[in-house]
Amino acid sequence: MSAPAPLVTTDDYARAAREVLPLRVFDFVAGGAGDEWTLAENRRAFERWVLRPRVLRDASQPETSIDLFGVRASFPALVAPWAYQRMVHPHGDLGTARGAARAGTIACISSSALELLDDLADVDGPRWWQLYVSPDRAFTADMLSRVAAHGFGAIVWTVDLPAYGLRRRDDRNGFEIPEALVPKGYGYDGSITWEDLAWIREHAQGLPVLLKGILTREDARLAVEEGADGIVVSNHGGRQLDASSAGLEALPEVIEVVAGSIPVLVDGGVRSGTDVIKALALGASAVMVGRPAAWGLAVAGEDGVADVLRILHEEVANAMALCGCRTVAEIGPGLVARAPGA
Amino acid sequence: MSAPAPLVTTDDYARAAREVLPLRVFDFVAGGAGDEWTLAENRRAFERWVLRPRVLRDASQPETSIDLFGVRASFPALVAPWAYQRMVHPHGDLGTARGAARAGTIACISSSALELLDDLADVDGPRWWQLYVSPDRAFTADMLSRVAAHGFGAIVWTVDLPAYGLRRRDDRNGFEIPEALVPKGYGYDGSITWEDLAWIREHAQGLPVLLKGILTREDARLAVEEGADGIVVSNHGGRQLDASSAGLEALPEVIEVVAGSIPVLVDGGVRSGTDVIKALALGASAVMVGRPAAWGLAVAGEDGVADVLRILHEEVANAMALCGCRTVAEIGPGLVARAPGA
Amino acid sequence: MSAPAPLVTTDDYARAAREVLPLRVFDFVAGGAGDEWTLAENRRAFERWVLRPRVLRDASQPETSIDLFGVRASFPALVAPWAYQRMVHPHGDLGTARGAARAGTIACISSSALELLDDLADVDGPRWWQLYVSPDRAFTADMLSRVAAHGFGAIVWTVDLPAYGLRRRDDRNGFEIPEALVPKGYGYDGSITWEDLAWIREHAQGLPVLLKGILTREDARLAVEEGADGIVVSNHGGRQLDASSAGLEALPEVIEVVAGSIPVLVDGGVRSGTDVIKALALGASAVMVGRPAAWGLAVAGEDGVADVLRILHEEVANAMALCGCRTVAEIGPGLVARAPGA
Amino acid sequence: MSAPAPLVTTDDYARAAREVLPLRVFDFVAGGAGDEWTLAENRRAFERWVLRPRVLRDASQPETSIDLFGVRASFPALVAPWAYQRMVHPHGDLGTARGAARAGTIACISSSALELLDDLADVDGPRWWQLYVSPDRAFTADMLSRVAAHGFGAIVWTVDLPAYGLRRRDDRNGFEIPEALVPKGYGYDGSITWEDLAWIREHAQGLPVLLKGILTREDARLAVEEGADGIVVSNHGGRQLDASSAGLEALPEVIEVVAGSIPVLVDGGVRSGTDVIKALALGASAVMVGRPAAWGLAVAGEDGVADVLRILHEEVANAMALCGCRTVAEIGPGLVARAPGA
Repeated sequence: MSAPAPLVTTDDYARAAREVLPLRVFDFVAGGAGDEWTLAENRRAFERWVLRPRVLRDASQPETSIDLFGVRASFPALVAPWAYQRMVHPHGDLGTARGAARAGTIACISSSALELLDDLADVDGPRWWQLYVSPDRAFTADMLSRVAAHGFGAIVWTVDLPAYGLRRRDDRNGFEIPEALVPKGYGYDGSITWEDLAWIREHAQGLPVLLKGILTREDARLAVEEGADGIVVSNHGGRQLDASSAGLEALPEVIEVVAGSIPVLVDGGVRSGTDVIKALALGASAVMVGRPAAWGLAVAGEDGVADVLRILHEEVANAMALCGCRTVAEIGPGLVARAPGA
Repeated sequence: MSAPAPLVTTDDYARAAREVLPLRVFDFVAGGAGDEWTLAENRRAFERWVLRPRVLRDASQPETSIDLFGVRASFPALVAPWAYQRMVHPHGDLGTARGAARAGTIACISSSALELLDDLADVDGPRWWQLYVSPDRAFTADMLSRVAAHGFGAIVWTVDLPAYGLRRRDDRNGFEIPEALVPKGYGYDGSITWEDLAWIREHAQGLPVLLKGILTREDARLAVEEGADGIVVSNHGGRQLDASSAGLEALPEVIEVVAGSIPVLVDGGVRSGTDVIKALALGASAVMVGRPAAWGLAVAGEDGVADVLRILHEEVANAMALCGCRTVAEIGPGLVARAPGA
Repeated sequence: MSAPAPLVTTDDYARAAREVLPLRVFDFVAGGAGDEWTLAENRRAFERWVLRPRVLRDASQPETSIDLFGVRASFPALVAPWAYQRMVHPHGDLGTARGAARAGTIACISSSALELLDDLADVDGPRWWQLYVSPDRAFTADMLSRVAAHGFGAIVWTVDLPAYGLRRRDDRNGFEIPEALVPKGYGYDGSITWEDLAWIREHAQGLPVLLKGILTREDARLAVEEGADGIVVSNHGGRQLDASSAGLEALPEVIEVVAGSIPVLVDGGVRSGTDVIKALALGASAVMVGRPAAWGLAVAGEDGVADVLRILHEEVANAMALCGCRTVAEIGPGLVARAPGA
Repeated sequence: MSAPAPLVTTDDYARAAREVLPLRVFDFVAGGAGDEWTLAENRRAFERWVLRPRVLRDASQPETSIDLFGVRASFPALVAPWAYQRMVHPHGDLGTARGAARAGTIACISSSALELLDDLADVDGPRWWQLYVSPDRAFTADMLSRVAAHGFGAIVWTVDLPAYGLRRRDDRNGFEIPEALVPKGYGYDGSITWEDLAWIREHAQGLPVLLKGILTREDARLAVEEGADGIVVSNHGGRQLDASSAGLEALPEVIEVVAGSIPVLVDGGVRSGTDVIKALALGASAVMVGRPAAWGLAVAGEDGVADVLRILHEEVANAMALCGCRTVAEIGPGLVARAPGA
């Protein structure tokens, strides 16, 4: 009997998670909406760009760290928010926060972890908070003030959930979120509008507010005009509107209208260090990774999250060296080109 | 033994129909002409467009209904006409009309159901009538006057059958239409021309006359000039000329020359709510769905038709919410873009 | 035990031929050069065009016949020349000529059938002669005068065989042409040049001379300048230079420079009636079909050739009806468009 | 039992090598970095160009030889450098040099063969030397002077290894280079810059210095400005930066800025004679082939290398004949066109 193959890529972790998780839980995390066209498109989008590496630039030891809203991250990949993490491993959101802290990067924690706020505050690492606005605005205002008091560094407001996406795997599996994992009083308001942004900023205790779920230049322009502090270009991991664009494909038009006024992040389909480089070369300040961290958590809890982030960090460093980028600031538009035939 | 998976998409119904139907009947409905390139192209065409969803527009409860020639449909998808429906289920065309009525949308009934006219008239729901012109014009004139008297709201004249398509599955299966299902005296005239349109309008008792089977700007322009009341851009579900364009691909050039003067519908390959949104964003007033309704009928008669339409209706509502469209009128051209690489 | 499926398309004949032929013979006919990229490209090329059918034109009974160099063919597809036909069926080239005659179209017979000239002359149908120039010019001059005397209507000079293509299937199979099938004294001269065209015309007894194997506008222009009577755009069925263009892809640039001065035919990948329509809409006067006729011959000798041509003829008539073309002359450029994404 | 199929293409040798090599050694040679996107892209790149063959040019006996830096090669394909050749066959680099000599072309020997220098000098054939600059510059200077003294004709400096690529097959296999094969004192310096080029030229004893691993017009321009004598456009066989462009795709922009001032070679994905023609038509002076030579060595040592090169040579001659090219100089830009849809 041969030893199990080592887990050397984030895809290795995905395969391992498939082994350890009950299928319906795996499907809940892995799946997307509808026919999962957008889920697959998120990956295809990265394959439509090639890197144009530069040589002889003494970049063998690149500096990979970045600064976002005054917080340093060891490399330009953050953990994306996702809900009900205790379903895949008892460590849950706490394991994610601790794993990210060990890797030196920011974990963005989901609203669904509200009841873990005290424990999360003890984690010695940079943390952001993902926000769904509840129909009960007082509940939301209270959440925001607690989050600020617990040392979170930014609010990431999810704006692409006016309705819940049609997750067909869950429908077929008869899957339902375990009630115990849903915080009391928790809910989301599908009728939110741009006017809610002012309200959130008012209650955010001075924390920067990013809008997550923007896919068009039109909405990016509105976000800037309405005072957003940052944007996460995202299709919610392909879990909301099937047939929507990949985040990476929407990124250039967002970057164009934002024109450097606020940071723009992107998520959806990031699986390797070269993916991170492509997103940054197209203008993103950083990326968010969701499922890879989830697979790390599923396979080995906090250690798994840390290891997945270590893999990505090493891949980013290697790709920067091979691209001739000594610093993240050197990852510029000349580094990418549309792949032939794409 | 596990319970059968629930049928949550129209494709689930297709798979279920494959189980319940004799192969040669399934093939008759599912198949296309020639190498079935066009049949497959009808699906590919939808994958060549992406949606550009807008956020924060309070669209969580969208109004999905439309008005066509003065008749209200609960959402912008009608049942396409198809022949010999009793082959797949005893409910036949009557089940289709009743299922559509329950879903609140229009069923377009095939000429081949002529002998069911009295029963169809009893169905409390909007109905249109599909027309083949017979070599016997008196027969056709009589049909038109009976159809009008039975409360049908529009005539959909099929113009893409000068000859019968080469359905190779049927040839290989030795399949023939059961003679009992063909109405007495029924036949189609392959030599019809634009001059017949005036004749039909004269005998249509004031009902609007749509031309179904147009795929070019040239013929769309003629249709408008010759007095058609509407157009259905269609390749007959891939069953007539293999290698012809997908309806969705032909739609933009038709929309351009029609320039809003008459309603334009499209069919071929619509399988989900996001498909409907794409067609409307490209200018269609509504879509027609054929095979999904046929699979519903095959699986569960009237109930199956109603359930397939319920699925599509819910998907349309969900997609509108996620696109930020509060009404069908808000489904505009900015909502779609050519998919990268397409 | 079920009856064998009827052979209703040319691809059905290909599958049936695979059953009846020894693999190495099948491979000799079916195979192409190198990695067979060009062989596959010949098919892909047809899938890169869509048809734009017109309606209501009373084309249900189209006239499919054409006239080429004063000879009538029942429909615009000729049998392409191919060598050593007795390998696949004892009827050999004679069966091909007779099958074509029954179908009312032209058979182009290969030089390799030289010893059958007397028998071929007895076939009551239009025939052309394919020519390889031998290193022994007297041999060639004699062949030309005998061919003219035996009632052949045109000379089709193959110009794309300066060297023999690298047929890897044959190499792997250790396949060699049976010596008995090679006519005595027969050989080809790889060092032919444009100057040989004048010599051939001088010895062709007034027969029109077509050049087969041209793939570029440059050579098409030279062909016209040097006095060719016609061109067959061809890559030799993908059997000579792997990686060369498909004939159908090269056709438009040839049509452009020839500008109607001489007839242009095309071969390579024609398998159905809609393929024929596409080639004609792009400017060809007719197509040649090779392998489909070979599979017909392999399966049923003369009857098989006739039946394959009957299938194609019916498909052409059906496609013309469905495209709204009453005559071959009506098959014009507006009938095709580049397929989306191609 | 049937005889084994003859090895008639370089891909046949790849399959045969897969049989004779231990999997982890095969994987070391065959594998690429990351997801092996670039490894596959190297092949796809060749399929994006088609050849436009010319006819009637008396090219049946083409002259395939070229001259590079005063050395004659029998045809425009050289053996690319690759390390640790004794892992696949005891003949190792010596077998490669001898096989190439028998085929009349240049073998570029890897730095890792440093300890075989005396034996290599006895091989009667053209040889180039691949260079990694060591952190110990004296070691490198000594290597260069010995290489020059041993009759090598050029220095090929690899510039795309500031860090070692992430070879995931090797990680999963737990593969490590056998220590015995690594020359004493041998190592590479990842911090090399353009300034090292002057130093190398100073110590190269007058040998021409080519830079291998350039993929952008920017670096090509710098190479010319900094005095390189030649460029090898290369992504290191897909083994360094995954997601980087194919060499063939980068070639045109390099050719454009170099503008004929120095020879440009290309490697990556060359597997057949038509591949060689495409690269030359796009402006390369010659190509390098790596894995095909490795498979030849693995299967039959020196004989295998010679046979693989014989296959390629024959394929180049055949393709030239079929393209109408009498000499390598006639392989010009008119011979290629972008493949449709690419």
